[in-house]
Amino acid sequence: MSDPPVLIALDWGTTSFRAYLIARSGRIADRIERPSGILNVPDCDFDRVFNEAAGPWIAQHGALPAVAAGMIGSRQGWVEAPYVSCPAGLEDLAHALVPHTARNGCRLWFVPGVMRNDDDVPDVMRGEETQIVGALGGSSATAQATFVLPGTHSKWVLVENGRIVWFATFMTGEVFAVLAAHSILGRLMAGESEDVAAFRRGIDYAASAGHGGLLKKLFSTRTLGLFEQVPATALRSYLSGLVIGTEIDEALACLAARAGSTKPATITLVGTQSLGKLYVTALATRGLATQYGEAHAAARGLALVAAAAELVPAR
Amino acid sequence: MSDPPVLIALDWGTTSFRAYLIARSGRIADRIERPSGILNVPDCDFDRVFNEAAGPWIAQHGALPAVAAGMIGSRQGWVEAPYVSCPAGLEDLAHALVPHTARNGCRLWFVPGVMRNDDDVPDVMRGEETQIVGALGGSSATAQATFVLPGTHSKWVLVENGRIVWFATFMTGEVFAVLAAHSILGRLMAGESEDVAAFRRGIDYAASAGHGGLLKKLFSTRTLGLFEQVPATALRSYLSGLVIGTEIDEALACLAARAGSTKPATITLVGTQSLGKLYVTALATRGLATQYGEAHAAARGLALVAAAAELVPAR
Repeated sequence: MSDPPVLIALDWGTTSFRAYLIARSGRIADRIERPSGILNVPDCDFDRVFNEAAGPWIAQHGALPAVAAGMIGSRQGWVEAPYVSCPAGLEDLAHALVPHTARNGCRLWFVPGVMRNDDDVPDVMRGEETQIVGALGGSSATAQATFVLPGTHSKWVLVENGRIVWFATFMTGEVFAVLAAHSILGRLMAGESEDVAAFRRGIDYAASAGHGGLLKKLFSTRTLGLFEQVPATALRSYLSGLVIGTEIDEALACLAARAGSTKPATITLVGTQSLGKLYVTALATRGLATQYGEAHAAARGLALVAAAAELVPAR
Repeated sequence: MSDPPVLIALDWGTTSFRAYLIARSGRIADRIERPSGILNVPDCDFDRVFNEAAGPWIAQHGALPAVAAGMIGSRQGWVEAPYVSCPAGLEDLAHALVPHTARNGCRLWFVPGVMRNDDDVPDVMRGEETQIVGALGGSSATAQATFVLPGTHSKWVLVENGRIVWFATFMTGEVFAVLAAHSILGRLMAGESEDVAAFRRGIDYAASAGHGGLLKKLFSTRTLGLFEQVPATALRSYLSGLVIGTEIDEALACLAARAGSTKPATITLVGTQSLGKLYVTALATRGLATQYGEAHAAARGLALVAAAAELVPAR
């Protein structure tokens, strides 16, 4: 049976660009990955980047519709798609798509980010909402599920009946990266190999009571190195464990403070790339079971949004 | 009455070099300040830096004894003076001085740092112990006093009967600086002016319950800027309030966890430079009164250590 391409799906973030050619069945027929994140596009000529990637597909299959998620839909991106508020699910995203016509004639639709404003301060996501939709696979059956999307700005996301009802951002990856690269903590570090024992020691120390919080505990990366209690080659892993452990404890405290929330039974990890294994280890120390979500959650989510907005023929 | 110079005192840290000519009465007869911190000395030729500063004094007054405190006595410095352990006071420092003869014939003594190892992880100070000794002014009368030395690596120090019995390091200043310079949080910041309202908002948010800890709260610097709830010109102050408020709450939690400790009645601020006013404001929000310690605490401390070690004639 024929399964022709019907959609171009763009997962376009700050540092990376991923384009997928999606067939009617939902199958990924082709894919392109480039470092053309929105910060790496000369003169913000997003049209050019899009056409270089999608041009050959369009030449072969005609001007397919395209959907785009991620920072490309931010104020710093190509076309701004304003945030929708929590609770937000597949239908909410599909209704808020922002259309645009590319120079090559393609019609594009930009997926909005999601914001939460039920707090002293707002929180935002852009791109992760589409991964969540993809990980849910269009289902709204699960009463409650907790997702974690590790990374530069880790997201913890609570989903109820198919809609994002709460989420929080933790600057784990970026704090780790800037401290390792630019602070005194990086000076004693040697190499980038993973050291499981040091990683676990960092996770444990993050939870130790009576020793203050992160601002104090961070300095242990210096002193444990200075007194050779953690080898120089293991200090990166130690700091990684310290910040990931801190993230998990902060997130669990947030969830515990939410009325009616219970400690999640299982965490679904999405878009983990190389961090997945570290999070499985770290979450297990806090008694949390884990499972991996859909591998191509963004592409799957984009296809579901396009279908919900009737941009592509029903399967 | 004649009050001749009797001592050269060096407060020599990572980024700055301060040399004092101390008279018999303890008066500062002359002083030199240069950016020749140990990281800025070509070929680690500390002898040259010392002689360029102290040479004219020596030519005029003869080969005075010299004492040096700070990172100059670390492994990365000129002569390593191993840490002494808590509890440590004036006599402990004076007994552990490490002597050295400079190329110009001067005898130098290096003041040790202080370490604390009664915990899962060690903590260290180097230079601050001398400032504390100077702030105490040689007195061991006060039963208990709490000192805060704000900065790149803020120190909270508990003194009992003239000796440092406990201290903790918080990476407040460095975390602020690297995040402002190298993370997404700096991108929306405009200018370096101080905004008291934003600073206070940051302090308050640091203490808000149910919103996680620092890794989560840091991201508010981004979102409050994004939604223009804090103006771009005030975001630096907001982040500054957030990290200083977090430091204070972590430190108070550490003190509360110490057996027999009570919440300090008054905090003595030492070596605050431009940060003093911010800490007075921030500490007041947590119900803590403040006073400023000795202005030239390092010079005063060095003079006291030299006297205790009988390097200079008694007054």
